[in-house]
Amino acid sequence: MRATRFFISTLKEAPADAEIVSHKLMMRAGMIKRLGSGIYNYMPMGLRIIRKVENIVREEMNRAGAVEMLMPVIQPAEYWQETGRWDKFGPLMMRVKDRHGRDYVIQPTSEEVMTDVARTEIRSYRQLPVNFYHIQTKFRDERRPRFGLMRSREFTMKDAYSFDRDPAGMQQSYQLMYDAYTRIFQRLGLQFRAVAADNGDIGGSGSHEFHVIAETGEDALVYCPSSDYAANMEAAEGVPLLAERAAAKAELSKTATPGKAKCEDVAALLNIPLQQTVKSIVLTVEDEEKGEAGKQLWLLLLRGDHELNEVKTGKIPGLANYRFASESEIIEWFGTPPGYLGPINTKKPVRIVADRTVANMADFVCGANEADFHFTGANWGRDIPEPQVADIRNVVAGDPSPDGKGVLAIQRGIEVGHVFQLGTSYSQAMKATFLDENGKPQLLQMGCYGIGVTRILGAAIEQNFDDKGIVWPASIAPFEVVICPMGMDRSEAVKTETEALYQALLAAGVDVILDDRGERPGAMFADWELIGVPHRVVIGDRGLKEGKLEYLGRRDSEASNVPVTEMLAFIQSKLAGNQVAG
Amino acid sequence: MRATRFFISTLKEAPADAEIVSHKLMMRAGMIKRLGSGIYNYMPMGLRIIRKVENIVREEMNRAGAVEMLMPVIQPAEYWQETGRWDKFGPLMMRVKDRHGRDYVIQPTSEEVMTDVARTEIRSYRQLPVNFYHIQTKFRDERRPRFGLMRSREFTMKDAYSFDRDPAGMQQSYQLMYDAYTRIFQRLGLQFRAVAADNGDIGGSGSHEFHVIAETGEDALVYCPSSDYAANMEAAEGVPLLAERAAAKAELSKTATPGKAKCEDVAALLNIPLQQTVKSIVLTVEDEEKGEAGKQLWLLLLRGDHELNEVKTGKIPGLANYRFASESEIIEWFGTPPGYLGPINTKKPVRIVADRTVANMADFVCGANEADFHFTGANWGRDIPEPQVADIRNVVAGDPSPDGKGVLAIQRGIEVGHVFQLGTSYSQAMKATFLDENGKPQLLQMGCYGIGVTRILGAAIEQNFDDKGIVWPASIAPFEVVICPMGMDRSEAVKTETEALYQALLAAGVDVILDDRGERPGAMFADWELIGVPHRVVIGDRGLKEGKLEYLGRRDSEASNVPVTEMLAFIQSKLAGNQVAG
Repeated sequence: MRATRFFISTLKEAPADAEIVSHKLMMRAGMIKRLGSGIYNYMPMGLRIIRKVENIVREEMNRAGAVEMLMPVIQPAEYWQETGRWDKFGPLMMRVKDRHGRDYVIQPTSEEVMTDVARTEIRSYRQLPVNFYHIQTKFRDERRPRFGLMRSREFTMKDAYSFDRDPAGMQQSYQLMYDAYTRIFQRLGLQFRAVAADNGDIGGSGSHEFHVIAETGEDALVYCPSSDYAANMEAAEGVPLLAERAAAKAELSKTATPGKAKCEDVAALLNIPLQQTVKSIVLTVEDEEKGEAGKQLWLLLLRGDHELNEVKTGKIPGLANYRFASESEIIEWFGTPPGYLGPINTKKPVRIVADRTVANMADFVCGANEADFHFTGANWGRDIPEPQVADIRNVVAGDPSPDGKGVLAIQRGIEVGHVFQLGTSYSQAMKATFLDENGKPQLLQMGCYGIGVTRILGAAIEQNFDDKGIVWPASIAPFEVVICPMGMDRSEAVKTETEALYQALLAAGVDVILDDRGERPGAMFADWELIGVPHRVVIGDRGLKEGKLEYLGRRDSEASNVPVTEMLAFIQSKLAGNQVAG
Repeated sequence: MRATRFFISTLKEAPADAEIVSHKLMMRAGMIKRLGSGIYNYMPMGLRIIRKVENIVREEMNRAGAVEMLMPVIQPAEYWQETGRWDKFGPLMMRVKDRHGRDYVIQPTSEEVMTDVARTEIRSYRQLPVNFYHIQTKFRDERRPRFGLMRSREFTMKDAYSFDRDPAGMQQSYQLMYDAYTRIFQRLGLQFRAVAADNGDIGGSGSHEFHVIAETGEDALVYCPSSDYAANMEAAEGVPLLAERAAAKAELSKTATPGKAKCEDVAALLNIPLQQTVKSIVLTVEDEEKGEAGKQLWLLLLRGDHELNEVKTGKIPGLANYRFASESEIIEWFGTPPGYLGPINTKKPVRIVADRTVANMADFVCGANEADFHFTGANWGRDIPEPQVADIRNVVAGDPSPDGKGVLAIQRGIEVGHVFQLGTSYSQAMKATFLDENGKPQLLQMGCYGIGVTRILGAAIEQNFDDKGIVWPASIAPFEVVICPMGMDRSEAVKTETEALYQALLAAGVDVILDDRGERPGAMFADWELIGVPHRVVIGDRGLKEGKLEYLGRRDSEASNVPVTEMLAFIQSKLAGNQVAG
């Protein structure tokens, strides 16, 4: 590609609404252009990257035996009504009426349509297993779109759906996809981690998320460096930090803690470790049919240095629809405002759940349900009835790994892929069956597998940038090599050598761009460093006099001189070095 | 590709709603699957074809110097409001509100968004010319979607937009696209014709449509076999069929024509040629501000054997917003119901427009504005004031070509491409300017260029099918070659030879499918004939004993035997023969 036949448009400054580095750099490099809130034009420079990502995804999906198709962007509501997601999906799903007043969905995902294809196309066990995928435009009407392609409303997703005859088959299909995803992210040249995940609203049994590792990532990834344990924060199991409960030694004693509403302050005041304190979190569950009479307050107890895990909390029987209690509810049930709450002497009966660690604590400090007072020396069994025990906290670095093989570490990640074992949740709702060997209809066992294609661009940048701009992995760089001639219009030698190298690289199948715009060297170099092309060759009269060209890798601090005759082989060896064994 | 790793799903019968052959065959061949009215899943077999079409389009667009990008499916209304098309587009354009109540368009086309990109990205004449294109999902809420991919609501379109500094540059860009389209349809292996077209609602000056020739086509294409004149019916110029007007010979005479309301019947009753009669068409134009007082009726006169051309009619000054008159309006203005209308003795004054041919007629027959009566011997100037003259009829086969080089012929076509010279209609509305050499802002000169990617599938089939199924041109067949082994599970020789040929074809870069499903030969052959793969190799024990394989081209009536050792070269020569010189 010659730069004058392409469209390059870089900016010195990022627009004010770009908050994170990937958004800023993509805007500055002219890869995307904002059209509306969370809606972007993919400019030529950006689209090249998207296509490269898509191609890697496509190749690995095909290699894993998945078959590509394409489901529509606009989907009739009736399919979504069958599974109930027409009502459940909420405002994230954009809905539209046609000229006849019929309802449609702008697809946020495609389980329903896929299941409809399967229930009509799959008749016999002989057609199984099968895995369909598509790479398609999705739309989710985010409440607060931001971060460029990281949380845009219109985006490109690869979603795949596997169909099997039984759970064992489904798990095999799931593993195939897990392995394909691993190869995809390897080939994308990204540092990533797969973690066990919660299934969320999509239903089904098991799932894993694939995260690109980046300090700026929104998600906390929990892993054990000494084993293969890895989970996201929502799913990572918190083990009791005390193996067993010590015997009570202290007396229960109400202690004045004026103005000390936080565990940290109480511990400091009483000169005890924060680990000796217990914090109270109050939740409300309403039984809508019974109204006020059906309202129940729950008190969840965590060690003072721990944080509540809201996903785990929602899985406790009875807490599926919890919300945090309001201050007036707390006063009504506890007789005191937040800050001094505890399990002892509540005004009205509450249900108590203690975190696994709290359940093993003895002689602990908790609120006295009276402003400016805490209890010290509190003990289970003696002062408070034995509580319901559950894992309700976020793990922290240094916790023992749940597999017993070391301690946990935490790093930040950006979710770019998710694989789910759906089981029969959709096939049951939509009556998607096949005939088994005995001619008996059986529900299809499903899995679903998503990759956020456009989001990968943002994640790759968050992981790979420096003060000059983006540092693309070679496999998804918009161009692998840029040739920057110095004074091509003045020097016949530069012109000849530039053209020769350009043609040689093209002939060798290298994705090369020749910057024939005639820009000043400084501006030209700055553009390509911002855009992030991994390999740069500078051709100038000075070097040519010695038969040399200048090479600079995007991560190199110093350029090296390479003989003209060796540059092609040199570039090829650089590119080969970038390849990941497939 | 092995058939067992792909998804093949053929039907014996087409669904009842499939009216035309391409729709029926695509459904039966499992290429598309209906999801809703005018909305289809592209199944794996269909998507392969779409991708091949897209790739040919992409390659030729790139070769012509166009740059690929991607504009969003969901576009903020504000851009469409700027050009007024938010109001003008009508119900064909689907509109949607987001969670904040803001208006969006599901794009039916992208002139507005493209012009917005241009006005911010193009700053200087040095950036011109530039041509951006994208291949993207479009949605048009057709009142009556039908014919499968021929008139679906969701479809894939390639749309390109060129930007130039002056009209001469714009015409150069237009010609580049015209030539690229010619190469595209050549490479698609389709018989096609480019015809001059009316610009329609999109605005601007010149345009051409590209049509796939097919007897079932909706459009009439006018062309001159002795020259390069070609236009669609809307745009084809009708020349006067009488070079000059003869002198009046007959007297004007009111003649009883009881019950003869049609020219054909009147001509038969009076025993005169139909070409001696004149038919009346009455139009109404309302000046909305003046109400009833602003209503004007127009009488358009055509020779009895001619038909009105509604597009040409709308271009007559004053007739831009015409409608056909109601019966009550006709009675009010003419004093008689339709059937006996004419230019003489109307009850109220009407504006008269005569077709070019009618204007040169003498001694003609027309209605007398009295039920059951016609005038014979009517003459311009003598009986009726000289009329306004215009080309308002559809041409017919045998008419002289407007270029004077022969006579016109008519064939049917399916529109698959359209190129437009837009000029400054959009850049003016959206203030899209660039700075010229003198630093003065100038309006961008635009062209736009569309290809209906998914529609091409339907059109290709309408042109290429037989009683067994589809006959794809090799360049867009889902597979170029199918290998049908006979009894691969029984015969080691068949298995070995099948695998050898399959691997050899793959290694040679041939897009081959190996039908390893184990179907009966009859069912297997029927499937591939229905699907329309152009080259078939059958491998069986009987042939192998003689060292032969059986080859059948999709259009061949008889198979030929080819030595095993020569089959690869044989297939390659067949495929090379299919190539169009690019």
